[in-house]
Amino acid sequence: MSQAVKGYPAIKWRAGSSSHESDNMVVEEPLEIRLGGRRFTITMRTPGHDEELAAGFLLAEGFVTARNEIDEIRRVRGSKGEYEPNALDVILKVESRALSERLKRNFVVSSSCGVCGKTSIEALERRLDRLKGDLRIAATTVLGLPSQMRGAQEVFSATGGLHAAALFGVPRSDAASLIVLREDIGRHNAVDKSVGHALMHNLIPLHRSVLMVSGRVSFEIVQKAAAAAIPILCAVSAPSSLAIDLAEELGITLVGFLRDQGFNTYSHQQRILM
Amino acid sequence: MSQAVKGYPAIKWRAGSSSHESDNMVVEEPLEIRLGGRRFTITMRTPGHDEELAAGFLLAEGFVTARNEIDEIRRVRGSKGEYEPNALDVILKVESRALSERLKRNFVVSSSCGVCGKTSIEALERRLDRLKGDLRIAATTVLGLPSQMRGAQEVFSATGGLHAAALFGVPRSDAASLIVLREDIGRHNAVDKSVGHALMHNLIPLHRSVLMVSGRVSFEIVQKAAAAAIPILCAVSAPSSLAIDLAEELGITLVGFLRDQGFNTYSHQQRILM
Repeated sequence: MSQAVKGYPAIKWRAGSSSHESDNMVVEEPLEIRLGGRRFTITMRTPGHDEELAAGFLLAEGFVTARNEIDEIRRVRGSKGEYEPNALDVILKVESRALSERLKRNFVVSSSCGVCGKTSIEALERRLDRLKGDLRIAATTVLGLPSQMRGAQEVFSATGGLHAAALFGVPRSDAASLIVLREDIGRHNAVDKSVGHALMHNLIPLHRSVLMVSGRVSFEIVQKAAAAAIPILCAVSAPSSLAIDLAEELGITLVGFLRDQGFNTYSHQQRILM
Repeated sequence: MSQAVKGYPAIKWRAGSSSHESDNMVVEEPLEIRLGGRRFTITMRTPGHDEELAAGFLLAEGFVTARNEIDEIRRVRGSKGEYEPNALDVILKVESRALSERLKRNFVVSSSCGVCGKTSIEALERRLDRLKGDLRIAATTVLGLPSQMRGAQEVFSATGGLHAAALFGVPRSDAASLIVLREDIGRHNAVDKSVGHALMHNLIPLHRSVLMVSGRVSFEIVQKAAAAAIPILCAVSAPSSLAIDLAEELGITLVGFLRDQGFNTYSHQQRILM
């Protein structure tokens, strides 16, 4: 937790008065992810669990599909031999021809009929299987997820400035147990870290699990759940139109507004038992 | 507003009961931004004010610096001659050599000492001037901004799923009047649309203005404010460490937790008057 939070001097203004104090702020720093030694992307993230972030990101983007395709995630050394705190190099065990095909497939986003939500969904359908499976979960179990999540969120309570993503295993319809919770300044990163943790522990596909996120659900969050084969995605706040459309197409149960002892479902409600 | 919201069937689950209803969700669709006919980027956004989004994005990234550098923002036609709803082509009046220099400068992010927050800040300092100016604003005026913002947020009240960014003009220290408010599923987009509106109306540099955002403040939001020369940036929620560091370096007054009749300042407090 220490590297995720940093104290800053602040002035607190209230009606008619101001006072000096120190505030704990969430740390944001760039992370460079390399692929076989070459820079692949730079993302702003909260330091910590960087290997999981890299692994989860590569899974979501379709560059790896299982733990055994990652040979090693190396820390990078700078010019003086010291470890770089903000760079990782992922060494894959994917044949270079297969990898370049995956890279190519990933950058075909628009079609002859232009860019739109439908083409974005079709691009993902070409590489992701529709989720089936017989996972069922009781509505009362779903209602219990927010308090389990809050109980595990240590940094948020210190700063109020973090997104969280929690993975729950669902052994029976009336039970959900926390597998991992990750926090980050970016919601996408928090999801990548949680899913990346599961990938590194060889838990993909996550057919008997629920992913819960602290905020809203966009298209990209559904994409990340689908890449990990997570059949149920829950959010404290609202999903977007395209998140619902994608969840519907990929067979994912989408739960929104999960708070205050209630929730709404937008797709594949059959997995929820009253 | 109509294109920003779409109705979806939902099931509402409460303790012991479930009911069918229709929920209004925020629309998320990809937008392809072209630069002189060539694809430059694709971003997920809420449709509406797309020209402003493109203009604000290009300003923040350093490709344009003023209104007169944009020749035209064209809608794009598909293969059957119809207008594409999700693509724009920006025609610049920037000399190609100057443009390629701007492009190049933009992709130099890391230095010999590696990627870190400091190098990210230094990269921006090479192209953005430190904000000076004599803008002052009364603390009581700052405290009034959230209610002005909420009053103008029409889509949020319909869906609960949108970020907002509002630009206020500050003619005197005791007055702030709304210039523009934009809402979007992405906080970055909401800022780009607000700032893009100002750019298209030839209001850049915004030396006598305040930008207020509905959520948190990351490095990138401060970058966008700085590119438009906005000296005061306010947020309902927390800033990140790197947002504070960048605001300090670029001379921006950063206000966080602006709600419930109070706020905190993290940099350049001299612009706030008790």
